[in-house]
Formats: sequence, structure tokens, C-alpha cells
Amino acid sequence: MIKAGIIGSTGYAGQELVRLLHHHPDVDINFVSSKSYSDKDYDEVFGNFYEIMNIKCINTPENISDLDIDVLFTALPHGITSGMVSQKALEKFKIIDLGADFRLKDVDVYEKWYTGHNSKELLKDAVYGLCELNRDEIKDTNLLANPGCYTTCSILAMTPLLKEGLIDPSSIILDAKSGVTGAGRGINLATHYTECNETIKAYKIASHRHTPEIEEQLSYAAGENILVNFTPHLVPMNRGILVTAYANLKDISDYDEIYNAYEKLYGNEQFIRLLPKGVPAETRWVKGSNYTDIGFTIDERTNRIIVTAAIDNLIKGAAGQAVQNMNIMFGLRENTGLEFLSPFPI
Amino acid sequence: MIKAGIIGSTGYAGQELVRLLHHHPDVDINFVSSKSYSDKDYDEVFGNFYEIMNIKCINTPENISDLDIDVLFTALPHGITSGMVSQKALEKFKIIDLGADFRLKDVDVYEKWYTGHNSKELLKDAVYGLCELNRDEIKDTNLLANPGCYTTCSILAMTPLLKEGLIDPSSIILDAKSGVTGAGRGINLATHYTECNETIKAYKIASHRHTPEIEEQLSYAAGENILVNFTPHLVPMNRGILVTAYANLKDISDYDEIYNAYEKLYGNEQFIRLLPKGVPAETRWVKGSNYTDIGFTIDERTNRIIVTAAIDNLIKGAAGQAVQNMNIMFGLRENTGLEFLSPFPI
Amino acid sequence: MIKAGIIGSTGYAGQELVRLLHHHPDVDINFVSSKSYSDKDYDEVFGNFYEIMNIKCINTPENISDLDIDVLFTALPHGITSGMVSQKALEKFKIIDLGADFRLKDVDVYEKWYTGHNSKELLKDAVYGLCELNRDEIKDTNLLANPGCYTTCSILAMTPLLKEGLIDPSSIILDAKSGVTGAGRGINLATHYTECNETIKAYKIASHRHTPEIEEQLSYAAGENILVNFTPHLVPMNRGILVTAYANLKDISDYDEIYNAYEKLYGNEQFIRLLPKGVPAETRWVKGSNYTDIGFTIDERTNRIIVTAAIDNLIKGAAGQAVQNMNIMFGLRENTGLEFLSPFPI
Amino acid sequence: MIKAGIIGSTGYAGQELVRLLHHHPDVDINFVSSKSYSDKDYDEVFGNFYEIMNIKCINTPENISDLDIDVLFTALPHGITSGMVSQKALEKFKIIDLGADFRLKDVDVYEKWYTGHNSKELLKDAVYGLCELNRDEIKDTNLLANPGCYTTCSILAMTPLLKEGLIDPSSIILDAKSGVTGAGRGINLATHYTECNETIKAYKIASHRHTPEIEEQLSYAAGENILVNFTPHLVPMNRGILVTAYANLKDISDYDEIYNAYEKLYGNEQFIRLLPKGVPAETRWVKGSNYTDIGFTIDERTNRIIVTAAIDNLIKGAAGQAVQNMNIMFGLRENTGLEFLSPFPI
Repeated sequence: MIKAGIIGSTGYAGQELVRLLHHHPDVDINFVSSKSYSDKDYDEVFGNFYEIMNIKCINTPENISDLDIDVLFTALPHGITSGMVSQKALEKFKIIDLGADFRLKDVDVYEKWYTGHNSKELLKDAVYGLCELNRDEIKDTNLLANPGCYTTCSILAMTPLLKEGLIDPSSIILDAKSGVTGAGRGINLATHYTECNETIKAYKIASHRHTPEIEEQLSYAAGENILVNFTPHLVPMNRGILVTAYANLKDISDYDEIYNAYEKLYGNEQFIRLLPKGVPAETRWVKGSNYTDIGFTIDERTNRIIVTAAIDNLIKGAAGQAVQNMNIMFGLRENTGLEFLSPFPI
Repeated sequence: MIKAGIIGSTGYAGQELVRLLHHHPDVDINFVSSKSYSDKDYDEVFGNFYEIMNIKCINTPENISDLDIDVLFTALPHGITSGMVSQKALEKFKIIDLGADFRLKDVDVYEKWYTGHNSKELLKDAVYGLCELNRDEIKDTNLLANPGCYTTCSILAMTPLLKEGLIDPSSIILDAKSGVTGAGRGINLATHYTECNETIKAYKIASHRHTPEIEEQLSYAAGENILVNFTPHLVPMNRGILVTAYANLKDISDYDEIYNAYEKLYGNEQFIRLLPKGVPAETRWVKGSNYTDIGFTIDERTNRIIVTAAIDNLIKGAAGQAVQNMNIMFGLRENTGLEFLSPFPI
Repeated sequence: MIKAGIIGSTGYAGQELVRLLHHHPDVDINFVSSKSYSDKDYDEVFGNFYEIMNIKCINTPENISDLDIDVLFTALPHGITSGMVSQKALEKFKIIDLGADFRLKDVDVYEKWYTGHNSKELLKDAVYGLCELNRDEIKDTNLLANPGCYTTCSILAMTPLLKEGLIDPSSIILDAKSGVTGAGRGINLATHYTECNETIKAYKIASHRHTPEIEEQLSYAAGENILVNFTPHLVPMNRGILVTAYANLKDISDYDEIYNAYEKLYGNEQFIRLLPKGVPAETRWVKGSNYTDIGFTIDERTNRIIVTAAIDNLIKGAAGQAVQNMNIMFGLRENTGLEFLSPFPI
Repeated sequence: MIKAGIIGSTGYAGQELVRLLHHHPDVDINFVSSKSYSDKDYDEVFGNFYEIMNIKCINTPENISDLDIDVLFTALPHGITSGMVSQKALEKFKIIDLGADFRLKDVDVYEKWYTGHNSKELLKDAVYGLCELNRDEIKDTNLLANPGCYTTCSILAMTPLLKEGLIDPSSIILDAKSGVTGAGRGINLATHYTECNETIKAYKIASHRHTPEIEEQLSYAAGENILVNFTPHLVPMNRGILVTAYANLKDISDYDEIYNAYEKLYGNEQFIRLLPKGVPAETRWVKGSNYTDIGFTIDERTNRIIVTAAIDNLIKGAAGQAVQNMNIMFGLRENTGLEFLSPFPI
């Protein structure tokens, strides 16, 4: 059994991770920690765990390299994990960080969009954990940067088109819509029920921190540096991300050519589902599961492609992908503990 | 492996049942049928099954006694299953009916609240499948009447109080609140999104068909015939039932006396959770799971008890309890395929 | 023109009041104050006022008796207004308090459910502003206690039955359901979007502070001291309160007898609508308006009456009733500025 | 007083129109008609009108030219109004059509996106009623084509940029999000509560009928024929449209240059609000009102502009604009009956 510790276990991603690990046949949860709820019973914080998991939140460990575990999951505000991780810890166990600290290779880009990084020397060892695109590197790393929710959905949507050179890389527009869990469990007026129910808005237009992460990964796919427009929206629902992506087709492409590009990259992927012709992605069919649904439409009038991609932001966009990465890193069957389909309607 | 057939597989309860059986380690789905969607791929009707279950809906079988299965689940409008079931079929396989046809023992009561019953001679053989209260009889039956959603929640909430003689049986008021899946997948104006979103209403006051079912079971518990007030409400959410129940305490009871009554009956039940003192039930902690949460408060000023009980109407209130009953009927571990906790927030 | 000041103008009730007064043909808004947003433009706090009302929030006035206004509205947490009001102020202008400070006549009851009262000597002068029941006293007061939201709905639902002696006064159960604006604009985890969306719960069972207010007013109607069970629930919607009330009928009553009791008291009331036979109240038909809808059903099996009553908690349950009271106090036509019907669906 | 008739009064736009006209100081409602609810009391169909408007729905008039009215509003599925309108009727009274029949000048485009038009000879006389852009022609017409909801929002968002030549007209992408009232009151599975709650999807990608209407009007603004990408999305909320629009800036523009383009066209418009720098449009601030909110952001990295625009789809996107048009056509103050601000939170 893999002994796992979870630091930051009482945010939404942390809690979802605890739920998935609790059900995982090869994992024992060693500890859950929380700054806000230390010394509280975990099932007092989250009533779904009542009578199911009898464990107390501990405080954040002072020195993680003392921990007797096989894998450490961290789900913390940016900057904290990078101050916690050390070479010594990485020699003892694997670390899967659900935060932003190790996602960007270019430290200057990091410093521009975030603030000071606390272990720059480790950045070169970190592997970006988008499972379907980076599986080989993931196998061998001890320091895994689990991708962001918007980024997972955006990158999976656009990579095949860029890899096959089918679109103008400078024309990408990503209009993203997220449920409110994407904003986390910290309270503030913007996510007070009656402030965000029955309304929709864009936010952080041209300035959201997931932008450079998307750009870095899509640049790899394109083989050149690219910039995108990324606009997140807050949708009155609990879970789910839908990305509606637009790009100019380089040539006149037909449906099959595009489809083959997706099929080539994702044809064998269990967790990516290419939807039938004419069927756009909807968050309801992936919510509560680790799946990514992708559909596309060619607008012949404007010669643009419109791609729709949907994920559950807390599963494929966070905890589920973290477990998938763990499975890869420990040589388990990749879908262990993740083979559940979306409950509907939920 | 248990070979299972599902008739009425494209309503919400039917679909939830298919999902649970798909994940059940001891079950093979033999067929799914649907009047509305016969010959359609199941994953075209429910996108959550896309690329996961490759099976076509068949039309409702004409003569079920020809079926080569071990268990038949029926999830149909009332009156249809009772016209379909036969002694011959019951000799070949077990039947678990998620509809209302075999829930009431008293056929006169059935005729009053529903319309004509089509196999009255089988009523005496049917067992009411509220697992926690009727386990022994369930083990031995071939014809199981799976309880209604409101009824499951109401009966579990009140039975201990009646069995222990703690409340005045003529004083029971059940104020129930349900998510919209409770109204089914059939379209009508009342459940059109913009007609029931952002509003709450009571409906079928003093006339809902679950009333006699609740009364019959609570009468067993009380050892006398009782009547209740049952008022269902439609709440703008997908899933979940909350019952707020009121009754006059016979004597001055203290918290422990009441708690012991619940503990006595449910103390060993995995799927019933007695909440800590002062914690009322909330649907969010049971949604997506087979659990029933129960809390209670004594109002010393009025000497009444207020019980809150919550379930997922499609799981413990329908498909989950059907699987739990199947497990009992086939001698499996009772929680097989049901040991998942509620995802949150969902 | 009536010069009005609003203290506590940036809570939900305060803001709704500002909106209603802005549209009121006989009122000039003299100032709006706010502790949290002092010196901010009001339309920066509430975008619906953008380019419509160009006014800055001032800080809470230190000494209200200096104010040059005709009427002061206060919408503050309990205890603050009673520390602010003085005889001197009341000689200069009328005060309409949307808070709880002057609602209870019995100061001992107040001290039990709230904490210290800061101007007990004024309690005897305060008039409880349930317009339809107390119109004559309202006309002549300078200190008006505007009723609570749950209480308005509960009292209007039950008063005719008690006045006419049709029900057992000891049998009243009030099961109330409220939208989330009822919890105010202050942020906390319980009203974080993803904590209260897609779920329903009861809260403050047998302990909500509106209980004594309901009991005091219903005791007047009954002519004896009565206690009730009042259970509030939080419903995932922005606005609206539905009260489902239960009581034992004293005798066998028929529909007309009950109807006449309501008609006798409310037959001439513009803002109370007795619904047709068989039609229960729904919040959607009153939301955004000052109306109260009331329906009832007699359950002959149990000889109980089930009353449903619905209001908009921020209008008839707060700001609308405050304006209605102002109209009465200033001798205006009672419906001035309140004659708008509910927009649908909204 | 203007005598008004409303044909198609029981759809959502029709009902909103009846509400606005009921409150309009210069209008008498002469009749409301409905195919589905003829001979029903209007307040039985819409409970918000209970005890407020005592009027029966009549059946659709056979020959409208016999009607003794000053203005006829039609809110019908496409094709029906064009078969109903005649030169004779237009000589007797004004017609404001909330449907699609007279919106497109190019009958070939109409035939391509819709089906057969039934009064092509009248198309040349029809005026497209986007009030702020077409006021002079609206004054003088008897046949007004009230714009669609998506189109109103999209056209108002982009027109200033095209008129001032600031953007590449071939680069426009309109990503639109609508509440579910946009889909109308007709029941179908897609708008069944539990099918569209807690999910988001795009629909009719590259094929929505509002596309040619947007293109025709934006072509006028651009002075050349242009094509756009328009993608509607269904959002789980009752009301409101948000358009997030993207376009390539022709040159390096600064904020002021863009702002001045909007100010030039809309600076004197009561119902268009240019939001402060950095504030994107949100549907909640316009819902329940006739306002259009517009904000924009320049992304210097990609040299694109992102415009956000929000309206209430049933008011500025339908009934409110129809009343605004009526006011212009009858020489009334343009905001008569429309001067209400958005209630919040609702």
C-alpha cells in the first residue's frame, strides 16, 4: 500500500483528493493536514465523511522531510509549497503539487504572473503532469506539477490542432466558463451565494494566471512561442469547466482531417472522449468523473474551427489528475481508483 | 455473475440503476430496455455513458418469463409492472420493482390512491424492501417492492420513535422537500427550467400517493393504524430529499432517551448515520451516496420533537436501495457496489 | 417631498429600500449611510444603480437628532438602533426600524432571545408595523418597528384562523423556507455559493429569534399566550419565503368557513391575495413585489389545516413593508411606490 | 391613451410585454391573445397577475385589419406574423413584431436561415428597431421589426468599433451566454430543469439564426459585408445575456481612443451604460431592467479587444425594447414606463 499524506486537505481540491484516495485500492491515507482546521475531525469539516473516515486534521508539518510516507500531495496557495519542498524530501518520497509553484519552467514568467518563487533550483526537475501528453516524463519524476483546471481543459482542446499544424497559432481565443468551486473554499463577497447566483460574468480578462501556463504548453505543441487570449467566466453552478476555443484554420480543412488529428493523439486515451460529429461538450456528462469531452465544429463561412472541451474542474482539473499522475509514477494501472462515470443528473 | 435486466432504463431512477449495476463487481447487465428510446444507443441517451457502455436500448420485452436472467429490475409508471409480472417469471428469476405496484399490502388502499392493479394475487408474496427494517423477509423473496423516495426517508426518520412508543402517533407531520429529479424525466411545464428555478412550492398537499405507503409502514411500527400529514415541496436543485418531521412527545423525554431509540434500531446500520447532537441533516452530505442522515431536536417549550432526515432520492430513495436489496436477496455483502461517499460540492 | 435618510443602506434590505425610495414619487433620498462602504459611491457598491443614482455613502451619523430629515430608516444588526434612537430624535422626525430592536413589547423576552436593549423606555411607544393588522396605530406613531421576514409571512398566514377561533392554538407548526438573501450580505462559509447551492437544510431549529416575535403577535390574535414550533430552512434561491403552516382544526370546518375567516380580515387588502381553492402559494408569483399570497387545504383525514403563504423576503418582508408603513405614517395612498407586480421568470 | 393588442401574450416575451404595458402610463391593453391558452384567465396562466389584471386570453384574431387598436404587438414563431400582416392593417395601426419575420432586409438570407416568408412585399417598409442606432427611421414607420436578444447585445457591443474603423471586421468572435428564458416557454427535454441545471453547453454552433441578423447590422456599421463567429451558450439561470466579443485591433489603440468611440455613439443614451475602466459587464446589474452594460479590455499582448456586454434578454432583448420603440413611434418620452432599475439580488 502506498502511504499518502495530504497537505491542504480542506480546500475543495484537497477534499476531493482525500475522497479519491480513500476509495483508491492501493493507497493508505497517512495524514491530512490543514491550517484552518487543525485538530478538528475531518468529518466535522466535511459531513460527507461522517462515520466513514475517522481521522483528525493535523497542522501543516514543519519539516516535511521527516515524514514517513511514499507520496505527498500539496494543495496550497502559490508560493507555500515551493518554500516547503527540498531535495532531501524528494529523495525520500514523491511529491505531487496541485498548486502553481512548479508548473512554469520559465522562472521569469513565473515572477511576472505570480510573486517570488522559493525553490527555483528545483524547477528544472519538476515535470508538468498533463498525463496524456507527458506520460513518459511523469513516470520518472519525483516532483510533479499537477496542471491547473482551466489549463488542462484548454491544452487538451488545442494541442492536436497545433501539433498537426492545422491552425494559425496566433489566432487562438479561449473563452472558458467555470463553476464556482473553481474559486475555492475561501469566503469572499464575489462568491457569496446571492452575489454570483443567477448571473454570469467574465473576470480577470487578459490577466488570469493560467494564461502563461497554457501558453507554455501550447508553445511546445506548436514548436514556437505563442500567445493566446484566455477569458475565464464564473457560471452559477458548483462544478465543471467548459472551454469554447476559436482558431483560424490554416487551410480549408475537412471534418475528417481534423478528427484524425485528435484521434491520432487521443485515440487510445481512456479519459479523453472525442464526441460524435455535431455534438458539443457539456459539463454535465463529465461532472463527477475524470473524463475530458472534446467536440469541434468547422465554420466554413469564416474558415474557423470552434472546439468545445469539458472537464470536472475538481477531478480531471485537480484531484483526479493528481491520482492519475500518482498511478503513473508508481507503476499502477493508470485508471486505478478513477473508473467511475459521471452521476446524472447531479 | 448475476445477469440483470433493466426495464425502464431511461428514466432517472433507471439510469442511476444502470450506472450502479455497471460498477457492481458481481453483476453483468444483460439488457436495458426503454419504450421511448428503443434501438437507440444508451450512451446517446445519456452522454455520461459515452465510450463506457456500448449497448443499445431494446424495446420492452413482450413476455418477461422468456428472459434468461437472474434478476429483473423494473422502473415503470404504476400499473405497468403489475401487468407484466407472473408467477412463471418469478419462478425463473427475482424481480425488484422500483415502481409503486407492489408496495401496498392493502389492495383497497392501492385502488383508492392509484387505479386498477393487474396482479392482485401476487401482492401477498411481495416484500417491502426497506432494507434496514425488513432484512429477513427480503432475503427470501422473489418479488421485491422497492420503496418510494419520500417514503424511505420518512419511514426511517419516524420508525424508532414509534417502535419505542415515544411519540403520539396521531401527531405526525412530515414536511418533505425534494429536488426536481423526484419529478422524473418526463417533460411538463411544471419542471421546465424557468418555471421551477428560483422558487419553492408545496404540491399535492394532503393527496400525494406516498402518503398511504408511509402510513402502512408506520402503522406496523406503531402497532396501530395511524394517519399522517405529508406535504411534499419542490426545491430548485437536482437531487436530494429532506424530511422535517414533527411529533408530540408522549412524556418529557431527554436527548439520551431519544438517541437510544435510534441507536437501538440503527446502531449497526452502515447506511444510516445518526448525526451528532445539534446537527440537522442536509442533503449535500448524502447526495450521490446511499446514506441516510438523521438528526433530531427536542423543543422543550412545546414538548415536540423535530426530526430531520436526508437521502439522495435517486440512490437510497430508488436505485441504491434496489441494489442493496439485490445484494441481500443474492446473499452478497450488503454494501457491495454501494460503498462510495458523497462527492462534495456537487 | 419627504426627506428620507437610510442608515445601513448597503445590506440587502437597505439596498432594496434605497431602490424603492428612489422610485417613490413623494420621497427625496437625503443620505445613505454605511459603516462598511462609507465614502464609496453607492453605484460602485451596487452596479444596478450605475449612472442612475449618483450619491456617496456617508458614515453612520454620530448623533441622529441633528439630521434634517422627515423620516429615518434604520437597517442594522440588533442592539445598534436602540442605542441610537432618542426621544429628541423622535420629536424631529419619524423612525422606521427594519431591525429587531423595537419589535418585542416584552423586554424580558427580548433579553432572552437577543442581548441587552439600549432604550427600553421607548419600547412602549413603538408600534409593530404589520400594516394590514395594525394600520390604525401605525398612523400615529413616530417609532415604527418593521416586522421580520419570516414573521410577516407566518403572522399573516395564521392570524385569521386564530382570531376566528378555528384552530387549536397550541398545535401550530410553522415550517418556513427562505432564499439566501434572508441571511444577509455578510460573508460566511454557510452562504458561500458552493456550500448552500444544490442542497437544503433546516437551521436554528427551535431556537430562531423570529419565534418570540411570531408568538407575541399570534398571542394577540388568539387572545391567549401561545407557543409555536418554527423551523426555518435555507433554500438555494436568491429571494422568497414560503411558510407551510399546520394546525389542528377545533371542529370539522368546511372550506367556506375557513375562506370566510381570511376574507373577513383580508378581503379589502391590496397586498394580500387569497389564492383560488386548491392553489398553494409559490414564491415565484410574489418575488419582486409587495404581495403576500395565501392558500390553504383542509385534510379531512387528520382534521388539520395546511396553510401556505409566500412573500418576497426583501420587499413585503422588509423594505416594501417599510415603505408601506411610511405611506401610512405620512398619510399617503398606502400603495404609493409599491404598485408593481412580480417580474416572471426572474 | 394608446390602445394596444398583444398577439402571442403567453410566451415569456409576450408576458413580459403585458407586464410592461400594464404599468405603462399611456397604454390601455385592449386584448391579449394566445393560441395555447385562449379563453383562460390571464392570471391563471401567470400567477403574478393574480388579482391585478382581470382579463381573458382571446384566440388569435382571424383578420387583424378589423382590430380597433393603435398598436399591435406580435410575439410569435417565425413565419406566422408575416402571414398575418397586411398593407390594410398597417394603414390602421402600427405593428411591432417581436419575432424574426421582418428583421432581415435580404429575403434570400431569410429564406436560407428560416423558411418561406409570407409577405415579402412589406420587407422594404419594415424598420429594424434597435432604438439607439435607428431612432430616426423608427419614428416614421408603421412596421417595426424588434431585434432579437442575442443580436441586440452583440450589435450594441460592436457597432462603435466598426463605425470608427478600429477593428478588423473579419476578426469578430461573439461568444454569447444566455439564461434559459431565451429558449422560450415551450417544453422540451433540453430545458427540463434537471437537464440544464448545473451544466453549461454551447449549442447551434456556427448555425444559430441570429447570426445573419447580427451580420446584416454590423455590415451597415462597417460599411462592408462582414461575417462573424457567433456561439450561443445555455447558462443555468433564468434571465440575462452576456456577450464576450473578441476582435483584432487594426492599430495599436489606447484605452481612451476606444472609450471615445463608445462615448461618441452612446454618450447620450439613457439605456446604454459604459462601465468604468476595468469593470466587465455582469448580467445581474441589468436583469429586470432595460439597460445595456458595456465594458472592454485591451489585451496589449495580442492586440485584441475583449468587449463584454450584458442585457436582460426579455427586456432590452425583447419586451422592453418593444416598448421603447413604441414610445419613439408615438412621440412619447423614450423612457416612459421603462425607468426602473434592476432589483438585486434577484
